[in-house]
Amino acid sequence: MTSFPAVLEAIADLQKNQIDDLLSKAQKFKQNAPTFKYAPLVATCFLENSTRTKNSFVVAAKRLHAAYLNFDAQTSSLQKGEDLTETFLTLHAQGVNLGIIRSSVSGLLHPYKEHPPFKIINGGDGMHAHPTQALLDLFTMLETGFNPQGKTIAIIGDNLHSRVAHSLIPLLTMYGAQIILCGPEGCLPEVSPHPRVALEPSLDKALAAADLYYLLRVQKERHRKFGQSQYFADYHLTHGLSLKKLQAKNLLKPVYHPGPANIGVEIDLDLIKSPLYQGYQQVAHSIYLRMALIHTMLATEWESVWP
Amino acid sequence: MTSFPAVLEAIADLQKNQIDDLLSKAQKFKQNAPTFKYAPLVATCFLENSTRTKNSFVVAAKRLHAAYLNFDAQTSSLQKGEDLTETFLTLHAQGVNLGIIRSSVSGLLHPYKEHPPFKIINGGDGMHAHPTQALLDLFTMLETGFNPQGKTIAIIGDNLHSRVAHSLIPLLTMYGAQIILCGPEGCLPEVSPHPRVALEPSLDKALAAADLYYLLRVQKERHRKFGQSQYFADYHLTHGLSLKKLQAKNLLKPVYHPGPANIGVEIDLDLIKSPLYQGYQQVAHSIYLRMALIHTMLATEWESVWP
Amino acid sequence: MTSFPAVLEAIADLQKNQIDDLLSKAQKFKQNAPTFKYAPLVATCFLENSTRTKNSFVVAAKRLHAAYLNFDAQTSSLQKGEDLTETFLTLHAQGVNLGIIRSSVSGLLHPYKEHPPFKIINGGDGMHAHPTQALLDLFTMLETGFNPQGKTIAIIGDNLHSRVAHSLIPLLTMYGAQIILCGPEGCLPEVSPHPRVALEPSLDKALAAADLYYLLRVQKERHRKFGQSQYFADYHLTHGLSLKKLQAKNLLKPVYHPGPANIGVEIDLDLIKSPLYQGYQQVAHSIYLRMALIHTMLATEWESVWP
Repeated sequence: MTSFPAVLEAIADLQKNQIDDLLSKAQKFKQNAPTFKYAPLVATCFLENSTRTKNSFVVAAKRLHAAYLNFDAQTSSLQKGEDLTETFLTLHAQGVNLGIIRSSVSGLLHPYKEHPPFKIINGGDGMHAHPTQALLDLFTMLETGFNPQGKTIAIIGDNLHSRVAHSLIPLLTMYGAQIILCGPEGCLPEVSPHPRVALEPSLDKALAAADLYYLLRVQKERHRKFGQSQYFADYHLTHGLSLKKLQAKNLLKPVYHPGPANIGVEIDLDLIKSPLYQGYQQVAHSIYLRMALIHTMLATEWESVWP
Repeated sequence: MTSFPAVLEAIADLQKNQIDDLLSKAQKFKQNAPTFKYAPLVATCFLENSTRTKNSFVVAAKRLHAAYLNFDAQTSSLQKGEDLTETFLTLHAQGVNLGIIRSSVSGLLHPYKEHPPFKIINGGDGMHAHPTQALLDLFTMLETGFNPQGKTIAIIGDNLHSRVAHSLIPLLTMYGAQIILCGPEGCLPEVSPHPRVALEPSLDKALAAADLYYLLRVQKERHRKFGQSQYFADYHLTHGLSLKKLQAKNLLKPVYHPGPANIGVEIDLDLIKSPLYQGYQQVAHSIYLRMALIHTMLATEWESVWP
Repeated sequence: MTSFPAVLEAIADLQKNQIDDLLSKAQKFKQNAPTFKYAPLVATCFLENSTRTKNSFVVAAKRLHAAYLNFDAQTSSLQKGEDLTETFLTLHAQGVNLGIIRSSVSGLLHPYKEHPPFKIINGGDGMHAHPTQALLDLFTMLETGFNPQGKTIAIIGDNLHSRVAHSLIPLLTMYGAQIILCGPEGCLPEVSPHPRVALEPSLDKALAAADLYYLLRVQKERHRKFGQSQYFADYHLTHGLSLKKLQAKNLLKPVYHPGPANIGVEIDLDLIKSPLYQGYQQVAHSIYLRMALIHTMLATEWESVWP
């Protein structure tokens, strides 16, 4: 009996009985699949760079002993959206149980809600939504003793285009907070999106009225074309926050930022290094919140294999 | 006794007795290696892009509880082939048990068949061979009720340069199929490569004679220089397949494609979305076939550690 | 009761009781964290390319059943060093227990020795140090029967700028070796860095006096600007080593190289293929030495979870 080749270069390396054995073994793997105790397969598909968010999901998935697949999409073709359905069906056929998708296209995932190929978590889609960021922010608030019920939270930055803001508003108002949206010209909606949301261009007034400051990241991509550095300097002057500024006004409230922060633009390093800054608490709590979410979304199908 | 430094920046951070302890522990790890229950180490080394094939191998390896290493080769130097032997010996020294190699160089793996540094699976080499694709296609056919024995299969596309075709022909004929190679000018060999293989330039005639259609991917890379879009339009007209075309001829046979498909070139979206299309079945069955192959190639050495 | 959505696109997909359940589950994951048997989390953060060293650490970590996170840094911003502290604090918040850091900046890790955010191993920093390379070289010597005590070791190459040399010198002298630094003009320090270290520009004299030859990699990056190929040709002539040259002088001593070797510059292929070459032994022993180091640095905190 010929032994199986150590190098499988071409079909000619195999004898027919070896192929028969392969096919029969593959059939056994297929038949046993439903009862096999495979770990659930979690895939990230980030069509936009975000090391921080991706790592947070990866750590959460690995702590739950899920198998993990990083799908390196050829950004260009998928960003056009034309092959996304086919890509999703391929990932489904490969056994993906949960996909975490980020892209720069608002509403990219909407068409998949009716017949999802697998469970899907929006990891941020364009200017539309970033629900896990809002959920982990709420979790961080509650765990650090800040119950949003009856409190006022100022969201400072480009509220018009921020998916983080668009997810924070419905969540924090649901948990009883009043919201003040604050930002320079072009960064606020024309009308309030919600009865408990006020618009306030002046940083000073927003700071004075709020119990917690949530800073948004200035999107460098949005101001690349003309006068980026001038825009940043102006932003820093009118809406940037520093420890010095807060101390001068005696407004020592917790400061949130979804990260990564543009130091010297929306936030100064003295504030990041101060105990007011909750950014690392947000990151630490992100792991637990995302563990809970992955566990909840996969638990029904995988009850038998979960440790 | 000084505790081990939390940051090992330089040799000066260590005391000699700490280094002695390290060396002694390393020696123990080395001595225990043969009896240690390490998971087999599977590495992918893809010198040519292929997310789909790579992911399929990765999922298969992880389902078998193998450890997995992604070797990101510096494409340029390895494609020239000059350092490949040294790279393989390094991977062997690092403990790799099985390497899955893809490259654009036909016959790249041939020199390693005599003294392989580790087990090797060809994941596609230039225009030469892609044996696991052919094996998973055969497995899919058998599992979906299509026994190739006595059937006729039309392989449509650039049969002259396709490694998929070059692996399908010996395998499917071994399992009793008749093959028709079909394609436009420049895509067919001058003489038939096998007694059971016919050449047929006309798509209509090939479709009428066959029981299963296997579409090859038009290699965009091969037509980049002049008139790519004209070539694609012509190809679509003469050899592209759509559900509409098949329905008009009442030829509702299973359609295979190794993926990723060029929609609007060799295949139309209506066909991909129809039940005739077997592409996702191929992907789903690829996992089991590749599990069987990895398991077979590693089982002899790893009997004791396999779960 | 509404079931949890299969696609979480936005906060609006969730009911308040579902969010309450999520928060409560996240809290349980957080509360259980200290007693949970998580695998230690090892992250690599390579701000400079090095597939070989990174893979060696990855294999070592995986053999110890550590969880592994590859941190793909946006090279540019981190190489400037401006965000490194914030990146480290983020990785710490995400649960990283040990970071293996490589960068082109000498002394990059020095500021973190006082209050390290997690355990840190220097995987090579600019021209400064590469302690694990030196440790694995010493381990390889001892395991292959070469005790450096009382022996003479010639380090041949750009000793002035090599972090490998800068780590070998304190380690090998600590273990009783005499060192000869050898190299062409511009590659030797002006004065000996250590009483047991001699400077010797002539390759012939260094070869004749030493019991082991340690070749350094010629840094292509350092000679890119003018006359690179001329520099390489000159280097090969005056300081390159070949089996032929060693045989002609009857100097058949073990030859070390930290890899990857520039074939035809500091070393010829005949020497790499000869039994004198210890490069693959170095790679094989690197796994055990790095396992011992990771195990030692993490063992105190993780005693309870280590298998």
